[in-house]
Amino acid sequence: MQESPVAGQDVSCCTDLTSAPLSEERAVELATVFKALGDPIRLRLLSMIASRAGGEVCVCELTPAFDLSQPTISHHLKLLRQAGLIDCERRGTWVYYWLVPETTDKVAAVLTRPAEALT
Amino acid sequence: MQESPVAGQDVSCCTDLTSAPLSEERAVELATVFKALGDPIRLRLLSMIASRAGGEVCVCELTPAFDLSQPTISHHLKLLRQAGLIDCERRGTWVYYWLVPETTDKVAAVLTRPAEALT
Repeated sequence: MQESPVAGQDVSCCTDLTSAPLSEERAVELATVFKALGDPIRLRLLSMIASRAGGEVCVCELTPAFDLSQPTISHHLKLLRQAGLIDCERRGTWVYYWLVPETTDKVAAVLTRPAEALT
Repeated sequence: MQESPVAGQDVSCCTDLTSAPLSEERAVELATVFKALGDPIRLRLLSMIASRAGGEVCVCELTPAFDLSQPTISHHLKLLRQAGLIDCERRGTWVYYWLVPETTDKVAAVLTRPAEALT
C-alpha cells in the first residue's frame, strides 16, 4: 500500500461535512466508499472482518454466516476491496481478509462534527 | 422529530464496526443511510446544507451550484431526507433544508474506532 506524500495532501481531505462544502473531486472519492457501505450484506461482512480480534478472517468463515452463494459473497468482498475498506491475501486454498482502518477513519472524520459543535 | 425512548434502545446501536459483527436489522438500517451518502451529488448537497452557518439553506441556493435540473436535485434531496440525514420545511415559494446531526453522528460512531484502538 502506498501512502500519498504529506506535501501532496489536499487540506480539504480533513475537513468534515459541517465545515465547508465538499469539492466535486472529494465528493466522488468519498461516494465510492459510502456506496460500498450502502448494502446490508457488505456492512455485515465488513463488521465481521473489522471485529475479528486476530485481525484477519478466512473467507471460509464468512460464507457460512450468509444464505448466499460463494460467488455472491466474493462479489461483495471485491466491492469492499475496490473501495479500499478491506484488503486480502491468498494463502494456499483460502483467501484471508482484513480491515484497512485508514479508510474507515477517513470517512468517519468526514461525518464527525468538531467537538465545539456538539451541544 | 420524535426521539426513541432510551429504554427501547438497542445497545448494539452504539457499538462500532470493530467491536462486534452487526446484526442483520442494524445492517439494513445503516445501509439505508450509507446508500444515501453513496452519490457525489448527494454528498455535495449534504455538505452545502451541513456547512451553512445559519443552519438552513433554501433550495433556490442549492440548485445553481449544479448543472442539473430542479427535479433531479429535488430527487436527491428526497433521498437524503428519507435516510433521515436532512429535514425540510416549505415557507411560501421555497423549501428550506437543514442537517439532522443525530443521523450523521450515528453513522460516524459506527465507523469510529475506540480510542484505545488508534495506534
